[in-house]
Amino acid sequence: MDKVKNIIVGCGITGITLARRIAEEKNEEVLIIDNKDHIGGNCYDYYDENICVHKYGTHIFHTDNKDVWNFLSKFTKWHPYMHKVKAVIEGIEIPVPFNINSMEMVFPSCLSEKLQQKLVEKFGFGKKVPILELRKCDDKDLNFLADYIYKRIFLDYTLKQWGVKPEDLDPLVTGRVPVYVSRDDRYFQNKYQGIPLNGYTKMMEKMLDHPLIKVKLNTSFNDIKNSIEYEKLYYTGAIDEYFDYKFGELPYRSINLDFQKYDKEYYQSNSVINYPENYTFTRIGEYKYFLDDKSDKTIVSFEYPEAFVRGKNERYYPIINEENLALYQKYLDEAKKDPKLMFLGRLGDYKYYDMDKAIERVLNMEI
Amino acid sequence: MDKVKNIIVGCGITGITLARRIAEEKNEEVLIIDNKDHIGGNCYDYYDENICVHKYGTHIFHTDNKDVWNFLSKFTKWHPYMHKVKAVIEGIEIPVPFNINSMEMVFPSCLSEKLQQKLVEKFGFGKKVPILELRKCDDKDLNFLADYIYKRIFLDYTLKQWGVKPEDLDPLVTGRVPVYVSRDDRYFQNKYQGIPLNGYTKMMEKMLDHPLIKVKLNTSFNDIKNSIEYEKLYYTGAIDEYFDYKFGELPYRSINLDFQKYDKEYYQSNSVINYPENYTFTRIGEYKYFLDDKSDKTIVSFEYPEAFVRGKNERYYPIINEENLALYQKYLDEAKKDPKLMFLGRLGDYKYYDMDKAIERVLNMEI
Repeated sequence: MDKVKNIIVGCGITGITLARRIAEEKNEEVLIIDNKDHIGGNCYDYYDENICVHKYGTHIFHTDNKDVWNFLSKFTKWHPYMHKVKAVIEGIEIPVPFNINSMEMVFPSCLSEKLQQKLVEKFGFGKKVPILELRKCDDKDLNFLADYIYKRIFLDYTLKQWGVKPEDLDPLVTGRVPVYVSRDDRYFQNKYQGIPLNGYTKMMEKMLDHPLIKVKLNTSFNDIKNSIEYEKLYYTGAIDEYFDYKFGELPYRSINLDFQKYDKEYYQSNSVINYPENYTFTRIGEYKYFLDDKSDKTIVSFEYPEAFVRGKNERYYPIINEENLALYQKYLDEAKKDPKLMFLGRLGDYKYYDMDKAIERVLNMEI
Repeated sequence: MDKVKNIIVGCGITGITLARRIAEEKNEEVLIIDNKDHIGGNCYDYYDENICVHKYGTHIFHTDNKDVWNFLSKFTKWHPYMHKVKAVIEGIEIPVPFNINSMEMVFPSCLSEKLQQKLVEKFGFGKKVPILELRKCDDKDLNFLADYIYKRIFLDYTLKQWGVKPEDLDPLVTGRVPVYVSRDDRYFQNKYQGIPLNGYTKMMEKMLDHPLIKVKLNTSFNDIKNSIEYEKLYYTGAIDEYFDYKFGELPYRSINLDFQKYDKEYYQSNSVINYPENYTFTRIGEYKYFLDDKSDKTIVSFEYPEAFVRGKNERYYPIINEENLALYQKYLDEAKKDPKLMFLGRLGDYKYYDMDKAIERVLNMEI
């Protein structure tokens, strides 16, 4: 029987951060396993045609947490990239979230001026006004604006992205689509934004490069659990899977990424372009934009959201609602009976963590 | 025992200018020494990939003093470069100092128009209004503008640059960030602006190229002081160092420059881009812009301000405040006891000289 002090299941950004902390701070051995054939979980990237491609779709790092930024900065230099997203509305590429610049691109100036004035007066420059709030105003121009954005940007995109009507979603999710009373075209306003200069995988390889960390790929917990003794098990995989789905399955959204390589320098004008009102995909990502990679070819991915189905695709986004959270809680209560066991990460916590929040959660936990 | 009439310690722009004057005007021998392995002090530049790189960060020459301009023009031709600085605010590259153009780039037009009108009325076209003055106005729009600039451009940048709050700084330093009621995007408004056509080092080599000037590099004053007789010692090094720090250390800010070479034609849209509200560096300099150097590659530097620590980094900026000036005065009083000794330059005078002011000081002094 093998022995190891700590086992981490799942070699994504959560597991990797934790492995590093345990090795560095506790000076203890860690075995980190993953059933995929690569490290990094959904943050994994690789080079093709001199372009750094994100295998599981576009990943942009952004945080306000200096500790998180500094922690990662020990393992990578950064390309200081501020992410901007465009959406094609009425055939026009506008910045999203919808802002003052977007307004000027789609409306006649008389209308745009009037709306700007009302927004600045009512909400103030720099405010983000959620769509659903704007709909409730008793001003016909603002109502018009709300309806326009709701219909053009929000409704169909949400239907495609989540497969449900906006009303059936948690406000935390729907709130992601505001009107921004600003000319700030960025998708995120965080202090620290960037892409690891040599990609996420290289950064994560450095994080794992510690004499006390041992990585085993192509390995699930079931493969080893009967042949290894451990003191602590950190499980970043799906909590329902660990318990063999005994209370039922926790639902997730997934994405079917259709990668295409083109024999041209650029495919589109921006790293990510959303198609809220057209097509069955939600967006197209073009990877060379992230690190300003130079190549005669370009690689893009069309994103088709779909339901997660075991054995068919990957878990991406937990579907947060009362019913699912109650089911998660049942699993969590079960987990608490085993003092050696801890769940964490997007799948373990059943939370829609951005990368920084996943890391923050690990940096803040007691180990 | 060797003999020389004049010794100059420090082969930066101050020492070099002085050496030239003594040799030319007084026809006397000068020995100029420096403990670095190159001439030029912090103005030193070198060529890499056909790009003229400023080893100690971006240097732009600018002056209103025709004598200074003419003096240097004896040793170099000029690339007539007018420096413009951009800052990324809310993801938008705006001209700094913040001016009418910047205003139009970040605000909705209704707001921008109103602000322009008030600024022109109250202060007049062409005025530079210091941020701290603007904050004191009893007009809510101008207050808003002041707060906006203060927060977005000034506060975090100053914290990074000086490691202290703006209030704790000398107004001469904080006054460097005004609102400029103008469309002049230049960083400096001086009559003469440019970069030496073949770089600063070549210019300074010419300045030193005189039969009465002898240069010794890799040499500190301690190395020679007991083996050489002199009539006059001009010390452009740190005054506290000369006196072996007997009253304490004079503090300085330093900069950690992280140079990066990229395999692309340009890295950014401008020679210098400031990041006041993002990241831990203050700015990125891209060197090929200064002389419009042609190269497939590009070289940039990320600037991380930090405290000066002896033996670790270089002195860049004296930290001007009452306490430090008092300490400087103690050293100066001590210096006055030795009639052969004179201190000058950024380190000798403990003053934040621009290049032209350092030269002007030498041209105006009696020798």
